[in-house]
Order: sequence, then C-alpha cells, then structure tokens
Amino acid sequence: MACFGDRVIERMRRLGHPLCVGLDPYLDRLPPPFRRGAMVPQQPDTAQAVEEFCCRTIDLIAMDVAIVKPQVALFERLGWYGWRVLERVIRYARAADLLVLLDAKRGDIAETATAYAQAYLAPDAPCSVDAMTVNPYLGPESLEPFLVEAEQAERGVIVLVRNSNPDSSVYQAVATPAGPFFTVVAASLAQWQERLARGTTGWSSLGVTVAATHAEDTERIRVALPHALFLVLGYGAQGASAREAVRGFCRGPAGLEGGIVSSSRPILFPAASSDAGARAWEQGVRSALVRATTELGEAVV
Amino acid sequence: MACFGDRVIERMRRLGHPLCVGLDPYLDRLPPPFRRGAMVPQQPDTAQAVEEFCCRTIDLIAMDVAIVKPQVALFERLGWYGWRVLERVIRYARAADLLVLLDAKRGDIAETATAYAQAYLAPDAPCSVDAMTVNPYLGPESLEPFLVEAEQAERGVIVLVRNSNPDSSVYQAVATPAGPFFTVVAASLAQWQERLARGTTGWSSLGVTVAATHAEDTERIRVALPHALFLVLGYGAQGASAREAVRGFCRGPAGLEGGIVSSSRPILFPAASSDAGARAWEQGVRSALVRATTELGEAVV
Repeated sequence: MACFGDRVIERMRRLGHPLCVGLDPYLDRLPPPFRRGAMVPQQPDTAQAVEEFCCRTIDLIAMDVAIVKPQVALFERLGWYGWRVLERVIRYARAADLLVLLDAKRGDIAETATAYAQAYLAPDAPCSVDAMTVNPYLGPESLEPFLVEAEQAERGVIVLVRNSNPDSSVYQAVATPAGPFFTVVAASLAQWQERLARGTTGWSSLGVTVAATHAEDTERIRVALPHALFLVLGYGAQGASAREAVRGFCRGPAGLEGGIVSSSRPILFPAASSDAGARAWEQGVRSALVRATTELGEAVV
Repeated sequence: MACFGDRVIERMRRLGHPLCVGLDPYLDRLPPPFRRGAMVPQQPDTAQAVEEFCCRTIDLIAMDVAIVKPQVALFERLGWYGWRVLERVIRYARAADLLVLLDAKRGDIAETATAYAQAYLAPDAPCSVDAMTVNPYLGPESLEPFLVEAEQAERGVIVLVRNSNPDSSVYQAVATPAGPFFTVVAASLAQWQERLARGTTGWSSLGVTVAATHAEDTERIRVALPHALFLVLGYGAQGASAREAVRGFCRGPAGLEGGIVSSSRPILFPAASSDAGARAWEQGVRSALVRATTELGEAVV
C-alpha cells in the first residue's frame, strides 16, 4: 500500500480534479425520502436514516471523486447507534474504493492522543480510515502520536492550521514576532512534513487546513510547508471560487495538485431538492457534483 | 436545578476539598482483577472490563468527591462498544450523585459545534453530562454553540486555555502584543464568563483550564476572568503540589474555592497495586484518595 499522500494524489491525477465530498448528515436537512418519524437523534431509526443517506450519497459519487470526508460530530450526536453507523459508512465508502478522511478534529496529549490516533489510524480499528483531522492547540508534541501512527500505518494526518470561518482569525491571525499565529503552527510542522513525504509523488501524508477565503495566508503556508497536502476549506458554501480554492497548488504531471478541496452542503443538499422525492434529490446531487468537478477540473488545468 | 457553577462549588464547600477524579481507563494499566484475555480494544469483553473498572472506581470514591472526569478518548478507542459503556458509566456516576465533567476537548464550527454540544449537554442526550471540555482553536464564535447549550440546560463548559504538558507552551505562550497567546483566548471569554455567572455562589458555569505547573499564568488568567471556574491540570502525576494547584482560588465561606483540581493516575493506578488482587487495588485507591483529599483540603483552609 502506498502512503496516504501518494494514494490521494494518484487518484486525483487520474480523475483530473481535487474535489472531496464532505459527508455531513445534518438531521434537519435530510431529504424527505430518508426521513423517519420525528428524527429524534438518539433513536435507532434516526441512525438508520443517516446510514441510508450516506450510503446512497456514496453510490452517487463514488465513480467521480477520490475521497470523502465524514463529519464525526453528526454521527456522535446520535449516541452509540451513530458510532455503529459511522463504522458501516466508512466500510461502505472503502468498499466503493473511496479514500476516507475523517473530520474528527481530535487533540489531546501523550497516551490519550495515542488512543485517539489508534481509534482511527490503526489498521484494525473499527473506524479505521485513510486520514483524519487533528487540532494542534495542545502543542506540537501532542500531534506526534497521530503522526507516528500515520507513519506506521501509511495513513494521513491533517492539522488545523488556518480555517475559513471568519471568526477563526481572532486567534489564528493574532500578530506574533514570527508572523500571524497560524504561521507559528505551520512552521512547527516542517520536520514532520518532510518525514512523511517519502512517497513517489513527493507529497506528504501530513496535511494542513487552508482557507480558500484567505489567499495570502495560503501562500505563506505553502512557503513554510512546500510538501504538505492542503485541505482547502471555504469552497462552495462559504463563497470561494474554484480558482481561489487551488491557490498554493503546484504544477504536477496532470495539472495543478497538492490539495484536497472540500465541499459538502452544495452537493448533499442541492437547493431544488429540499422537499423533493428520491429521484429529484439524486439528480440534484449529480448536477452539483458535475458542476463542482468541472469547475475544479478547469481550475487545475 | 442550579447552574453547573453552583452545583460544583456547593458540593466542594460541603466536602471541604476541590478534588475531581479523572476516569482514565488505560487498557494496559487495568489491574489484574479487571483484565479479560488479550484486552483487544474492539472486543466487547474489553469494553466490559472498562465498564467494571470505572463503576468499581465510582463505588470507591463516590462519597468523597464532588465530580468525576471521564476521558472520552479511552472509550472512543473501543469503537461503538466503548460508547455504549461510556453512556453506562455516566449514568452510573450520576446515579451515585456525582457530577460528571466529560473530557472531550471537542471543537468545531456553527451547526457542527451545535451537534457536539447537544451530544453532551442536551438533557436527553445519551451521554448527557454536567459539563464538558472544549478546544478554542477555531475562534471564540466556535465556542458559542456550546455556551448557548450550557446556558439553556444549566450545564458547564470548560475551555482549554492553558495546559500543563510542557510542550503546550510552544503555541500557548507565544508572545503577542496583548501578552502570551493564552491571554488572548482568556480575554475573549470575559463576556460569556459574566453571562454564565448568574448563580448564587457567583461562580461562572464557564470554566478554563489552568496549569498548576505555571503559577504566574494562572494568576494572569484569574485577573482576566475573575468568576471563571478553573479546571486545574498537573496536580499529582505531573508534579505540582496541592498549594500550587489552588493558586488563583478565592476566599469563600468554607475556604479557598473557584476551581476543580483533577487527578487520575495516582488514584486509579496506585503503584503498589499494579499486579495485586482486587482487595489490594481497592485499598490502594482509597489510600490515594484520602491522601489527595486531605492534602487539598489543607491547602484550601
């Protein structure tokens, strides 16, 4: 098995675009065909509705994207039924030959961080995935258990560095002698970025979040971390264009590459299908998918 | 029901000490009486071992402490069996009249943060607890869904501000024009601290982590947040003394108050009991508990 950086880049080269579909099963947005009763979060039939919604979405997109990104919070909200469904959705996606990036944003220290890392990156874990997102607030050493596990198991770790919600600047863009705060975080990852960049494509299995809505920041992060994969936030729902989303990408054999551009709601919940039947929702998902992959495909040419 | 700030302070006044016991069921440290076979994380009998260990610990400590702090990572590592056990352990602790502070360190934005908040702070959630820890990296607005839910349900939220692992200083102590980075985070919480301080004791249901190993930082945080509860880290295993642990506490009717001092391993895994039978482990736990409550009780006089 190749390392995560190679696996994702090779698939994206083949497909010709960097789109990642976020699997965000918001209960109050599930289209009518999937709804069951009052959708009380901790009821088993609500978890089943979420499972069916996610698996049907996977059916619709699996041939056309490299990677999906389940949002853990929306499964966790359902109690242990939700975790059982998350395991099944991960298995379903991997069986459809998709890579899975778990949006978990975990962060803790020492042995506790190891427990989180093993929960998602150990090959035999019930929710074993190809990569996961982690939160750096507790210091660079708090990330090491994730990076060690990723290195051993050829998985990926995406560190929150720069986010796209406007308010994230309140902390992330605070001035420090070395530049805005996020540059301190980025700089501290340089060595691990190198260590996890030993694949054939040259891209690291260490990634970082960047905001398509903050182009200059993205370019600073690219300078600090030339081989880090970018998980690009803010494309679609938050208003960034496809060209803004691929900022900081680098020329590769099949076009610009080096990042994963995430989009969730515009694809999962296309506007016209909010009270439509199954067929209209499916057509809406397919149209939104084709629009995003075409737009991003043109931006990386 | 009183708000979280009141509930925890009133119990601590009655007991005469601020000790909180962390429920950290590390698989490789469980004493022999609880072990089952190879302790493979994702096996149901491993989850059962964890449940028995946590419930027996609760039996041994429930009369003498106000609050317990389960570490989510160690349940999450067990897959959905672990989540079912976490639900049961929370119920068991609350039935023993303990408050439960879930060490979840969650953090996300908007509706996703709301999902995490509801998973733990909504009264009808399967893992409903009295308070939870959250991570601020995504900005002050990312904390609001947790604070809104806490306010409605009279629960508490403890924000990671200053941590006790040495490496946390690499980010948290970075110089900014307003002081070390953690002071930027602390200052941004002032309004919510006031808003969640409307109980009778005057203590807020918004808390922050402080490190007993960084006394000067604790005092700065107390100045910025005069009513915030402190979750004090670093007492016991990380070497801070009881007097250092109660730094930043304030004189109340029954002694110094205003914080929750966490200790896990010295109580759960007393040295002499590592290969002992059930009785020796229980005696070790009781001795360690009495030592910690006595020491902390003397420090708050």
